[in-house]
Amino acid sequence: MNEQAIQSIVEEIVSRLKGSSVKYHSIPMAVSARHCHLSQKDLEVLFGTGYQLTKKADLSQPGQFAANETITIAGPRGSIEKVRILGPARNITQVEISRTDSVKLGLKPPLRESGNIEGSSPVTLIGPKGSIYKKEGLIIAQAHIHMAPEDAETFGVKNGEYVKVEAEGERPISMGNVLIRISPRYRLEMHIDTDEANAGFITGKTAGRLIRQEESL
Amino acid sequence: MNEQAIQSIVEEIVSRLKGSSVKYHSIPMAVSARHCHLSQKDLEVLFGTGYQLTKKADLSQPGQFAANETITIAGPRGSIEKVRILGPARNITQVEISRTDSVKLGLKPPLRESGNIEGSSPVTLIGPKGSIYKKEGLIIAQAHIHMAPEDAETFGVKNGEYVKVEAEGERPISMGNVLIRISPRYRLEMHIDTDEANAGFITGKTAGRLIRQEESL
Repeated sequence: MNEQAIQSIVEEIVSRLKGSSVKYHSIPMAVSARHCHLSQKDLEVLFGTGYQLTKKADLSQPGQFAANETITIAGPRGSIEKVRILGPARNITQVEISRTDSVKLGLKPPLRESGNIEGSSPVTLIGPKGSIYKKEGLIIAQAHIHMAPEDAETFGVKNGEYVKVEAEGERPISMGNVLIRISPRYRLEMHIDTDEANAGFITGKTAGRLIRQEESL
Repeated sequence: MNEQAIQSIVEEIVSRLKGSSVKYHSIPMAVSARHCHLSQKDLEVLFGTGYQLTKKADLSQPGQFAANETITIAGPRGSIEKVRILGPARNITQVEISRTDSVKLGLKPPLRESGNIEGSSPVTLIGPKGSIYKKEGLIIAQAHIHMAPEDAETFGVKNGEYVKVEAEGERPISMGNVLIRISPRYRLEMHIDTDEANAGFITGKTAGRLIRQEESL
């Protein structure tokens, strides 16, 4: 092998090694318990005409809050009480539960990005003043990371991109197909559900490691 | 750079690339719902003197069976009914639940290998003829892979070794600290609990991918 051939092999190998290098970024994690977002119309059916949600606590994403109000959700196999309403009221009613919850209800909600409820599972909502059968609106929320445009630039990721996140600890876990959601309103935080949290012994104190394969791969 | 220097760099890089190669092996997966193993003494307290378990169904590991009998387990915050007993009776009573279950009971069982219950969580067992407060015996089972010595040879793993297992699908997940357990009595199968299954949408039809980092790493 002549020197030039070897040199070009070295360059190729070095280039591929660089290409497959993996970048790590630390991401604060938050565990979303089952909850629902209600339209003002549905809120009034469940709690009475003109009803307004009252704030129990602010959430980490600006403007969002946990309400004092809760509802019961039900399916053909069972029901779950005290499902927290998150405010403010939205255009569309959406209920987010875990796969574990879905077994209890006897329903089969799809894994979806928040807001994408077309053709999702039906669910019955029960409040102190009325109940509603929603033909769709029940989902299992896909794990996602909220971030501001500056974070996205730092991390080199785009809106709608999927990444992998590893959480170290007593029960190490890594999650794939984690959706990147970028908005100037967002604060950096990964949202997972209680099944993912319990499978990895993840609490609000855990930091995840964002892993992004370089585009050159 | 002279030819010799380049050649030695190439050799080093090739050696490192080989060293970091990862081996894949497919592993059938089984989801263990919450269950308990009872000593004959505890079985008789719960079901009456001289009681013998009756078989509902054989399990995949030879000689093990799901009994028709179930018990209620309880903690300071709540109880769970219809917890399946697995037979035959063992020397020591052990109850295996998920982290999700532990929240409902208000107990904090440790993550343990089956059989290692020293200093684990207390739990109350309730049967049709009596109840028992166990000072220890409640655990969350560590994910593990049963295999025969021939499998272990094929896969190049040792008893007590920890590996990583990836499950592909709609909600890809990988689990670390998965324990290898080898016995001539075992049939190849990975056992995970319902939290791990629900976090990864894993069913009994899913095949996991055993990943073992080469020793040279």
